[in-house]
Amino acid sequence: MDQLFADRIQDVPRSFIREILNLALQDDIISFAGGLPNRLLFPVEEIREVTNQVLSESGAEVLQYGSSEGDIGLREWISRRYLEKQGLEIPVERILITSGSQQGLDLLGKVLINAGDPVLIESPGYLGAIQAFSVYRANFHPVEVNQQGMDIAQLKQTLQVCQPKLAYTVSNFQNPSGISYSEENKRAVASALKGQKTLLIDDDPYGELRFSGKPTTPFWKLLPNQTVMLGSFSKVVVPGLRLGWIVAPQSLIDKLLIAKQASDLHTSLLPQRMMHRYLTEYSLDQHIASIIEQYGRQRDAMLKAIERYFPKQINVTRPDGGMFLWATLPAPLTAKAVFDLAVKEGVVFVPGDPFYTSPHTVRTLRLNFSCVDEATIETGIRLLGGVIKRLLDDDTAF
Amino acid sequence: MDQLFADRIQDVPRSFIREILNLALQDDIISFAGGLPNRLLFPVEEIREVTNQVLSESGAEVLQYGSSEGDIGLREWISRRYLEKQGLEIPVERILITSGSQQGLDLLGKVLINAGDPVLIESPGYLGAIQAFSVYRANFHPVEVNQQGMDIAQLKQTLQVCQPKLAYTVSNFQNPSGISYSEENKRAVASALKGQKTLLIDDDPYGELRFSGKPTTPFWKLLPNQTVMLGSFSKVVVPGLRLGWIVAPQSLIDKLLIAKQASDLHTSLLPQRMMHRYLTEYSLDQHIASIIEQYGRQRDAMLKAIERYFPKQINVTRPDGGMFLWATLPAPLTAKAVFDLAVKEGVVFVPGDPFYTSPHTVRTLRLNFSCVDEATIETGIRLLGGVIKRLLDDDTAF
Repeated sequence: MDQLFADRIQDVPRSFIREILNLALQDDIISFAGGLPNRLLFPVEEIREVTNQVLSESGAEVLQYGSSEGDIGLREWISRRYLEKQGLEIPVERILITSGSQQGLDLLGKVLINAGDPVLIESPGYLGAIQAFSVYRANFHPVEVNQQGMDIAQLKQTLQVCQPKLAYTVSNFQNPSGISYSEENKRAVASALKGQKTLLIDDDPYGELRFSGKPTTPFWKLLPNQTVMLGSFSKVVVPGLRLGWIVAPQSLIDKLLIAKQASDLHTSLLPQRMMHRYLTEYSLDQHIASIIEQYGRQRDAMLKAIERYFPKQINVTRPDGGMFLWATLPAPLTAKAVFDLAVKEGVVFVPGDPFYTSPHTVRTLRLNFSCVDEATIETGIRLLGGVIKRLLDDDTAF
Repeated sequence: MDQLFADRIQDVPRSFIREILNLALQDDIISFAGGLPNRLLFPVEEIREVTNQVLSESGAEVLQYGSSEGDIGLREWISRRYLEKQGLEIPVERILITSGSQQGLDLLGKVLINAGDPVLIESPGYLGAIQAFSVYRANFHPVEVNQQGMDIAQLKQTLQVCQPKLAYTVSNFQNPSGISYSEENKRAVASALKGQKTLLIDDDPYGELRFSGKPTTPFWKLLPNQTVMLGSFSKVVVPGLRLGWIVAPQSLIDKLLIAKQASDLHTSLLPQRMMHRYLTEYSLDQHIASIIEQYGRQRDAMLKAIERYFPKQINVTRPDGGMFLWATLPAPLTAKAVFDLAVKEGVVFVPGDPFYTSPHTVRTLRLNFSCVDEATIETGIRLLGGVIKRLLDDDTAF
């Protein structure tokens, strides 16, 4: 069998996070490992209600095959939202509904990446994008991100070395690091890319989950005709309906539509109508406000506990939104060494390893604060701080 | 923008059937063009009921991210069904849930096909498979199918010319031709492939929709360790939930799982639980019996009308199940010429063109009987017969 596998699948590693998540499901383990939104905030009853309505009113229609572009009502809603929230005029024809934004990444890889094509990616960068583009044998060119955004010197150097076809960014509350690009940084990124043969992918699943700070100008405005936007309902409503979207220039949308047909014909109409009905009958803004309130408190609790329990040498980001923060350990500590001991103490997180496209000694770790209540955050961070201290004190550990 | 597109997407044509289906939506058009199951038979009320239950009992769980393999309950049900209906013992680990069986085709292409790899395909063959594999730049080797199944001489010749990585078959009530492989033909196909480095894909969306004749031995038994099975709930329950599955050898399943994660993380848990609950609370056999009863009557009506209204030179298949029959016109008639005139008369079908991987003059057409009632079938076939007669009589048309 093995000799039958295509080259493209040989190098894609099985997700390392899956194994951690299996650990995290055990009782008595405090998990900062998840990448999940908090299910206690899901509008379950509202969704049950609208589902009942949709199936009563148009059951046979929504259970039949549907269009590859996606439901027109939902696409119109998305178009209006861009106008209201970001002042962007997006014609509905430019919006393609996808089965989660992971499928958006897959379709972009399918339509755009030839084996060996250079792809600029943030370092650390989003694991799902690394996986999706690896399948199409992208040649990754990592550019570091810091508290301001992308390292502009590295970006310019990369543009000189190669002409990346794609530049992938999560500029709001990045997964994994929690950092956001400043207005100045975004403008510098856009100005460096302008006129180059590079498409910027602006993946924005967390943008509306802002606890502090101010929104910045969308890349779509700063870099017109060279930007693709990915959106998702996973973090603002629920992930289980698997609904995301792509906004792209028309000629790219036409190709993405062909790729979509070949990939799964279309995204199920039922969840699209459910979502549209939910968004029409309830206030998304109000719902998002309740998420922000809770995640914001949990971020504060995590930062406070870190201040109290982590040795001062540990660097952490202070995210203005989203679900993650990112810690950097001092040498000689490694994320893996801390992880191995932390599991024994009953607390897990994601070591930074899978977020890098080139192997090196990893001293970073991702801490999720969306799924853990404040008291548990305090306990977990105390345990983790203890583990780090013991390892720092213990010379023999290295 | 155009210079950015990957090679793999350049050659995949936009689906020709989509345009026909748009035509078919017009009032007063009788459509034999659809590939849809009949929505009048959808168990809408039952699905509304079970959805309500699932969301009431485990709403937050089914709206959260889920596992890439798919819901264990649904996979166990599928495993039991294979045992009950086909006497196959399929461990649940060998079953991967997909977002419709179109995604199964995409994942198989992703994991198995390098650009230029030889792929054996039926001629005529299923359009969705041609599209999915085209994306991975398969080098198609068409082998004709006839009333008995695959042309064995052509199959053997193809095996001599190349060593196809995949051989794609729809051996029950094939789409588009409606033919089924005989027991003898299946054994001859299996024996020709045995020991070769070729995986046979047995795509079986219609197998349970049998009106007449007897089931044949599954390829999984005839060609163990070399067969992959694709299944789907689209034709026996509803297509809109986008639920299919792959059964494959374990090492292939492991790779498909990685490809699945990279493609869309997982198939939504809600429709999987809805389907499982529906299958548990209601009798699928009873539901299938009602589909068979209706489709069977409609097939009979179509064959009877063809007997009455088509010129005798037109050859048609007599399917034992499924949703389609296939007509072959005498030269010099072409499917396209008939189509162009038929539209004007208010009746449409799918000309055979998109079901072939090599261009040639196409004199075949696919007629769908699942979505049209008996009276309309009579009217539509009468109109179509009239068109064909006029063209046969009209020398100037060629």
